[in-house]
Amino acid sequence: MDYRYERRYTGPVRALICDLAGTAVDYGSCAPAGAFVELFRRRGIGITFEQARAPMGLAKRDHIRVIANMPSVAAKWRELNGQPGTEADIDKMYEEFIPLQLEVLPRFSGLIPGLLDTVAKLSEMKVAVAANTGYNREMMDTALAEANRQGFVPEVSVCATEVKAGRPAPWLIFRTMELLGVYPPEAVAVIGDTVPDVEAGLNAGVWTIAVARTGNMLGLDEHQIAALPPTELQQRLASAYDQLYRAGAHFVIDGIADCVPVIEEINRRNPN
Amino acid sequence: MDYRYERRYTGPVRALICDLAGTAVDYGSCAPAGAFVELFRRRGIGITFEQARAPMGLAKRDHIRVIANMPSVAAKWRELNGQPGTEADIDKMYEEFIPLQLEVLPRFSGLIPGLLDTVAKLSEMKVAVAANTGYNREMMDTALAEANRQGFVPEVSVCATEVKAGRPAPWLIFRTMELLGVYPPEAVAVIGDTVPDVEAGLNAGVWTIAVARTGNMLGLDEHQIAALPPTELQQRLASAYDQLYRAGAHFVIDGIADCVPVIEEINRRNPN
Amino acid sequence: MDYRYERRYTGPVRALICDLAGTAVDYGSCAPAGAFVELFRRRGIGITFEQARAPMGLAKRDHIRVIANMPSVAAKWRELNGQPGTEADIDKMYEEFIPLQLEVLPRFSGLIPGLLDTVAKLSEMKVAVAANTGYNREMMDTALAEANRQGFVPEVSVCATEVKAGRPAPWLIFRTMELLGVYPPEAVAVIGDTVPDVEAGLNAGVWTIAVARTGNMLGLDEHQIAALPPTELQQRLASAYDQLYRAGAHFVIDGIADCVPVIEEINRRNPN
Amino acid sequence: MDYRYERRYTGPVRALICDLAGTAVDYGSCAPAGAFVELFRRRGIGITFEQARAPMGLAKRDHIRVIANMPSVAAKWRELNGQPGTEADIDKMYEEFIPLQLEVLPRFSGLIPGLLDTVAKLSEMKVAVAANTGYNREMMDTALAEANRQGFVPEVSVCATEVKAGRPAPWLIFRTMELLGVYPPEAVAVIGDTVPDVEAGLNAGVWTIAVARTGNMLGLDEHQIAALPPTELQQRLASAYDQLYRAGAHFVIDGIADCVPVIEEINRRNPN
Amino acid sequence: MDYRYERRYTGPVRALICDLAGTAVDYGSCAPAGAFVELFRRRGIGITFEQARAPMGLAKRDHIRVIANMPSVAAKWRELNGQPGTEADIDKMYEEFIPLQLEVLPRFSGLIPGLLDTVAKLSEMKVAVAANTGYNREMMDTALAEANRQGFVPEVSVCATEVKAGRPAPWLIFRTMELLGVYPPEAVAVIGDTVPDVEAGLNAGVWTIAVARTGNMLGLDEHQIAALPPTELQQRLASAYDQLYRAGAHFVIDGIADCVPVIEEINRRNPN
Amino acid sequence: MDYRYERRYTGPVRALICDLAGTAVDYGSCAPAGAFVELFRRRGIGITFEQARAPMGLAKRDHIRVIANMPSVAAKWRELNGQPGTEADIDKMYEEFIPLQLEVLPRFSGLIPGLLDTVAKLSEMKVAVAANTGYNREMMDTALAEANRQGFVPEVSVCATEVKAGRPAPWLIFRTMELLGVYPPEAVAVIGDTVPDVEAGLNAGVWTIAVARTGNMLGLDEHQIAALPPTELQQRLASAYDQLYRAGAHFVIDGIADCVPVIEEINRRNPN
Repeated sequence: MDYRYERRYTGPVRALICDLAGTAVDYGSCAPAGAFVELFRRRGIGITFEQARAPMGLAKRDHIRVIANMPSVAAKWRELNGQPGTEADIDKMYEEFIPLQLEVLPRFSGLIPGLLDTVAKLSEMKVAVAANTGYNREMMDTALAEANRQGFVPEVSVCATEVKAGRPAPWLIFRTMELLGVYPPEAVAVIGDTVPDVEAGLNAGVWTIAVARTGNMLGLDEHQIAALPPTELQQRLASAYDQLYRAGAHFVIDGIADCVPVIEEINRRNPN
Repeated sequence: MDYRYERRYTGPVRALICDLAGTAVDYGSCAPAGAFVELFRRRGIGITFEQARAPMGLAKRDHIRVIANMPSVAAKWRELNGQPGTEADIDKMYEEFIPLQLEVLPRFSGLIPGLLDTVAKLSEMKVAVAANTGYNREMMDTALAEANRQGFVPEVSVCATEVKAGRPAPWLIFRTMELLGVYPPEAVAVIGDTVPDVEAGLNAGVWTIAVARTGNMLGLDEHQIAALPPTELQQRLASAYDQLYRAGAHFVIDGIADCVPVIEEINRRNPN
Repeated sequence: MDYRYERRYTGPVRALICDLAGTAVDYGSCAPAGAFVELFRRRGIGITFEQARAPMGLAKRDHIRVIANMPSVAAKWRELNGQPGTEADIDKMYEEFIPLQLEVLPRFSGLIPGLLDTVAKLSEMKVAVAANTGYNREMMDTALAEANRQGFVPEVSVCATEVKAGRPAPWLIFRTMELLGVYPPEAVAVIGDTVPDVEAGLNAGVWTIAVARTGNMLGLDEHQIAALPPTELQQRLASAYDQLYRAGAHFVIDGIADCVPVIEEINRRNPN
Repeated sequence: MDYRYERRYTGPVRALICDLAGTAVDYGSCAPAGAFVELFRRRGIGITFEQARAPMGLAKRDHIRVIANMPSVAAKWRELNGQPGTEADIDKMYEEFIPLQLEVLPRFSGLIPGLLDTVAKLSEMKVAVAANTGYNREMMDTALAEANRQGFVPEVSVCATEVKAGRPAPWLIFRTMELLGVYPPEAVAVIGDTVPDVEAGLNAGVWTIAVARTGNMLGLDEHQIAALPPTELQQRLASAYDQLYRAGAHFVIDGIADCVPVIEEINRRNPN
Repeated sequence: MDYRYERRYTGPVRALICDLAGTAVDYGSCAPAGAFVELFRRRGIGITFEQARAPMGLAKRDHIRVIANMPSVAAKWRELNGQPGTEADIDKMYEEFIPLQLEVLPRFSGLIPGLLDTVAKLSEMKVAVAANTGYNREMMDTALAEANRQGFVPEVSVCATEVKAGRPAPWLIFRTMELLGVYPPEAVAVIGDTVPDVEAGLNAGVWTIAVARTGNMLGLDEHQIAALPPTELQQRLASAYDQLYRAGAHFVIDGIADCVPVIEEINRRNPN
Repeated sequence: MDYRYERRYTGPVRALICDLAGTAVDYGSCAPAGAFVELFRRRGIGITFEQARAPMGLAKRDHIRVIANMPSVAAKWRELNGQPGTEADIDKMYEEFIPLQLEVLPRFSGLIPGLLDTVAKLSEMKVAVAANTGYNREMMDTALAEANRQGFVPEVSVCATEVKAGRPAPWLIFRTMELLGVYPPEAVAVIGDTVPDVEAGLNAGVWTIAVARTGNMLGLDEHQIAALPPTELQQRLASAYDQLYRAGAHFVIDGIADCVPVIEEINRRNPN
């Protein structure tokens, strides 16, 4: 009884779990931002795109609550309604949000460049690809239908409403691993574009990759990025990298097109 | 972009997930062993208690399949039936196994000494206690009803038939964490009495504790242990400790009565 | 508050701080040794070149004190002067040492082979090169003027008299980093030819490289080395490597001509 | 040549370098905040206390530039002056800031509770205490004169204008170590109340302690804290701890009164 | 006295210590198994080849005792002899075993494919090759004479009867290192085909390599392997790899033909 | 095959292997020094006690060779004999050395204070105590006979002439472990008073303790130490600690009387 045996995983990555908007589809993660702005506009409350984007990564219902609790938004609400918002108000807004979001989703469903090549190479490496989102099942199916048509067909998909809580909790990831039948956590990588995405990965104990350029951190589609002065782009990118690394991401890359070398690097770190 | 930030959990253990038979109740894990022997006896196949116990820790349906595939059992089956057993045979046996198991469960439901004290101390330490088993829900509820009457009421319980696969897969543990709302894995400890229990813990990335004396490794109830010559007990215990450590258990103890100091040691290892 | 974030530097080496005599110029570090012998000879005390070299790496004033306190030297001093030497004697000797040293410096200012190539490659790697010495400013400027003429122009230079204490204290290195604007310590490498050079590097927390062949450890210029029987050269080199490694040097190489692969190896050790 | 020798420091902490405002004196770090608000008010630009505090930790001249570059401030400046502010404007504002700051300093110079006890215990532990600030020498001397009168007399003090750049560069710390004659970095701890304070410590390679309650993160003096509803205080404190840990602080505590156990913990981590 | 210096070996592997049967010669480790079966057959006790092989790796005298103590064997012994076996019985059986083993050794002395190439490459890498066995000197000399004729001539050989105890004790390895004059343990690798071989290596603190295919774990010679259905071979190999890794082997390979890349990998792990 | 299992020793120290002269007996390690001086005096060569002590720790025959090869000694030899010394001369001197050493041994055989208490406590901790020396068997038996009379009876003793080479090779330690039957190396500690003692410990992979005050590093018996001015004692001790730590000793203590807390500290480092 004088010896302990410490088990270490030495196999390769077996699954990559992708966030959808801003990571796999919807360059700049623009679909949800506009819907949140419209949702509050209808209640007489102007919010900025920056405010709309701040909680990105959370489940959509949680997202609405976080915006509603922002000091300026909460103040305006009280001014308009004579009292603070309640959970019932959040419920009503969420119900209203669903069709708003569903309506715009098809327009924001283009695959992010490089995704199909990445998935093809991962398939050769026997890495299963799955999808997670903060959407509900209807929104996810809408988004995935468009993605499927363009050739992106994840093996498994789980959305925030199917588990007990959305990100940064790790339940989306755990349920996806269960559906894929892939473990231990060291055999799994997740990729996302927000700080809650990174935290969910750390909370599951899996390898955590973040994208700085194609998602919510820049919050710009390809045309908007092309129009940016190069030094401003550099500054914004540097800030995005910094925030994602500070959240604890193991790797930060521009976008999913750069994902394969990271998976190879993870495989190299597993000795023998 | 020249710095990475490595996040480390520094908080205490927040949940202990207990296996039932052999860990929390049923000293010696005797309920299932007898039922398996009887199940095969009815088909004209004699199996030893040792054979009946070997796959312990697995979901019960998997357990039956492993016994059926043991060379001597498979040979006898072919001899009796003229052909190998099929999945349909396993299904039929499992259906038959359920009432057999349910019948004996109440007789093998005594709490293992020290359990209630341990749970009380864990409660003071704000450690939630949950239960996992390889039983199905009906068996688990039967066992828990007896345990409740004696004062053991886990906050949450998950059984093997409620997830995609039983141990050594980590799904029982992940689902229990989700129901408890406790993460990351470093905040969770599991305790069990078999090698698949240990492997499930390692596969979930949580702290893994094994009990050598009160469960399936010795496979003896308190009276049988008391009747054993001391040197033989020492030898069997040493072998049990050795097998559980070799499976990679972080800690091996006699039984759940020794669990609190281990939780305290884990808390000490988290700096600051 | 349950998480700590451990920051790690992952960038490349950004600055190399070179010792002068024996490392960048003056193969064999011969300039100071002769001056010390002459200094004590003038006071009627014969010292060996070995004694003259033993404290090399220190500031020159400290160097004189260490020689004066060697048992044989101190005994001779008392015999000649009837009393032990005082700090005032050290001061006087140091004043006398300065012109002695200045006079010979131009003769011992040849660049060590490979220096210019190394600096050129480091410049491509965006590694700034600076110089440190135990000389005072006048001696350093004399040595650097000769070095400049031959093409070696460090971006910044700091000498022992400009900080509170010379090596093995880390102040020369810290002041040089400040003038270069380069931090953290993991982004800096120092290179020198003596044990105090190595210790200063360790005391600053920077990467520490030592040269075994071109400096004070062998104490021979290129012609003297060429004249040595190969086995004796091997023995002396092995002893030099051993002493520098035992001082804690991270890397020991023959001379600065071998420095670039070491910088590349350091860069490789910074993951990602 | 087949062995390397890795040197490790095993001695105790020998010096503690304290930030002044918010850490040693001026509970809530209130002196600078008011001066910045007044400085911009005089130019017709209203800034919030939150904006005034955001860059705290930097040298004061850098602090003014950061405020001036905040989008809302820069916009207002252009509106008022028809063009963006220049470095010359920053110079002028800094000149004007100095008397403003000097005027209020004596009012905000109370020692933070527990400081004198801490210094007394550190003195018994042979830990030297020094002071660093982002002030210039005149402001620092003014603040220290008041502190001296109350019994706090650091052995050495260095201010941002005496080194090449203020925090987060490590030069203040390196210069202080030089004046104290204390090395290596593992023998030194710094304590401050802002993210740049933490980063300067990490950039110097020393032990880094942050205070969450008495300084700029809460930005409240003792009376304001006493007036806060307990749950709001808890929330704000938790957020302060979180931000300081995320910056990479090795330890976060309420205030300098809790510093001695941290020094003892650091000493324990040095084996033998 | 504030610094410790941790010495680390950074040189290459200097010696490989090979087990004989199943590793260097006798594909499948068949010589001893048959002799043990015959030995017990002569006493009227039938044992399976599996039983004969289970204790493989031990010194032969220990091997006999372990078989004699197997429950079924011990029971048969008592039945035949009216009392349990004694140490004197073991002695007698060992004496009888020696000629039995010696007789068959020449027939089972073929070199395992790839051995000579491996030894040639190791010789270029200046890695000395030595041999260890659980045989006595006479058996070892018999086996080595055959091996020598085929071109395999280890520099040094030590057998179990020449040290105080055979494997898993490390004495065979220590004595071999002494005869070779090679240290420290990090400069030595051992290679064997059984769990006691692996444990002896760990107990000596040397690099430990195990072969899964050519030795006792499969227990099949090349013809028997060729005759195996591929899926069964895969299963048996996977089980062999698993058992050897679980014993703590640093590396598991098919056979000694794959040994050179492992030695190169070990050399790579020694930095600088 | 995706998991490796790293075995770690978690048990206590089971054996302490003591050097004799300067560690267990003969305070100041005075017996050998005088014999070497006399040996060379008889050949007309005066050597200092410092020279006589420099190679201490080696086997005595090696010790003579190292002295004979010191430049001043070799020069004098050539002057007296017209040619350099040969191995045959070393042999003759060693033969002559034996009776010289044997004669004085009884006079220098007092136990070092604290030894018996230490051995008694180690016995309670179930730590076996053994002895190693650079003496030959006759000298060792002479020294041990005196030690036995005073109550020090090591379980096992091995001397340099019984293995292939003395220190710094690890063979003395390995042979002692074999005689004691104690492994792995992590279960063993060695204690000695010289740099070769430390290196032998590191070369065996065992825990290595050095004594700075009672042995060859100070080279003074208790009366001589008592007569030393305190500051000189401090300086010499500090230098002795420094040299032993730089050799890589895991622990340096004054003498064997301080050994038990070190063993306890080693036990604490083995988790669980």
